Amino acid sequence: MSEALLAQLRDVNSRAAFNRWMGLEVIAAGEGFAEIRMEHHPEATQYAGFLHAGIIGALIDTACGFAAATVAGAVLASHYSVNCLAPAVGSAFIARGQVVRAGKRQIFTRADLFGEEEGNRALVATGETLLLRA
Amino acid sequence: MSEALLAQLRDVNSRAAFNRWMGLEVIAAGEGFAEIRMEHHPEATQYAGFLHAGIIGALIDTACGFAAATVAGAVLASHYSVNCLAPAVGSAFIARGQVVRAGKRQIFTRADLFGEEEGNRALVATGETLLLRA
Amino acid sequence: MSEALLAQLRDVNSRAAFNRWMGLEVIAAGEGFAEIRMEHHPEATQYAGFLHAGIIGALIDTACGFAAATVAGAVLASHYSVNCLAPAVGSAFIARGQVVRAGKRQIFTRADLFGEEEGNRALVATGETLLLRA
Amino acid sequence: MSEALLAQLRDVNSRAAFNRWMGLEVIAAGEGFAEIRMEHHPEATQYAGFLHAGIIGALIDTACGFAAATVAGAVLASHYSVNCLAPAVGSAFIARGQVVRAGKRQIFTRADLFGEEEGNRALVATGETLLLRA
Repeated sequence: MSEALLAQLRDVNSRAAFNRWMGLEVIAAGEGFAEIRMEHHPEATQYAGFLHAGIIGALIDTACGFAAATVAGAVLASHYSVNCLAPAVGSAFIARGQVVRAGKRQIFTRADLFGEEEGNRALVATGETLLLRA
Repeated sequence: MSEALLAQLRDVNSRAAFNRWMGLEVIAAGEGFAEIRMEHHPEATQYAGFLHAGIIGALIDTACGFAAATVAGAVLASHYSVNCLAPAVGSAFIARGQVVRAGKRQIFTRADLFGEEEGNRALVATGETLLLRA
Repeated sequence: MSEALLAQLRDVNSRAAFNRWMGLEVIAAGEGFAEIRMEHHPEATQYAGFLHAGIIGALIDTACGFAAATVAGAVLASHYSVNCLAPAVGSAFIARGQVVRAGKRQIFTRADLFGEEEGNRALVATGETLLLRA
Repeated sequence: MSEALLAQLRDVNSRAAFNRWMGLEVIAAGEGFAEIRMEHHPEATQYAGFLHAGIIGALIDTACGFAAATVAGAVLASHYSVNCLAPAVGSAFIARGQVVRAGKRQIFTRADLFGEEEGNRALVATGETLLLRA
């Protein structure tokens, strides 16, 4: 855990309009990892009331990007993928991103997304993002 | 082009809170394809002002899901991936989804995302979604 | 179609031990695309007698890499993915790779894989490869 | 670790012509995981002498499929992806597959691929496979 990295990510997070709209909060960060949290809200759902796959991807991609930023500074997502393991339900969602490998040009990352309900966490999605150093 | 499919997708689209928030509009649909459109708006951007990768994925996944729905009715996304080819700029964005193969259990789809600026369209991202029949 | 590009790819193909073992042949090439062919052989199958998913991926990745080489020379695969659409049967297999976008650092490509049986071709798999300029 | 699962996977492995050609060996198995090993051999290389990306994918996909088989019996790969993290060098390669989630219809898996050189192991690739119950 690093207070300096946490402060940096919170600053970037506060400057992204989409992140503010989603209600994203950076809750942990350190060398090679970052954790974000979003309270459930109605605008984040699809027709059946579950978290929209687009928001699932946004949470995963953002957690991966923040994890990459802790080791590489400015980065650009070039590819990402999302596995929808289970219906994404919860009163809040936590995405944990981590760096798998930081190369000279590319950063490989992955993330897990958890739904939180009355203190219990369940894994609802996984994903990965490949980023370029900007 | 099918008026009946277009009406069905517009109905689903209007019932998804996330789609309404994004300002998604279904502009074309037929057997095996669907096209959606979103006007640019500030809440859809990342820190540098480009379309957020999460919104890029949401547009691609939604176009893929709608294309799948035209041949299979109710479907669930199980995996999707996104290629960020170029900075996603434009005054509006159009995503065209198409079915690659509809099997007994799975629907394979793909989509292209275009940024539109003064009548010109540029390809900014591609992606694909694998869906299960619900 | 370009005779010079075809000759270049055939030269690279002949120097890759794995390609020779698989019996890969480069049958077409031009600016941004390449087509390869492999006769069916028993060592390329999985336990049920269909083409092994590993060989499916190898054909797709190779066709993508060759397509990228036609516009970028030396390249390195950094990520690839494969969709197994249908049981891969045929007396021969043809993979067609094409460049989706060639950027300053990355080349995005995709490929289709067909099984050939008595003159008929059926699409059995699709895939994509993201490559770095070497 | 389970002797019964190991024996089952070795039996499947011995019946796949491609696996025999590659020289694949199943070295560990248990509920939700499997580990395979391949000695380096010249036919597995690309033009520069590194392990061919097609073989990297084949090792990852096979380890994932075997891991899935330990919880679901007969399965079919429907999608897989591969991240080439570093040049794949080594005198032998070990792929460890594990189940991320086994659902009613789909099994989500992932795998790590290590190159082994004089007793040291280095992570050279990661990947994931989505399988259907057969």
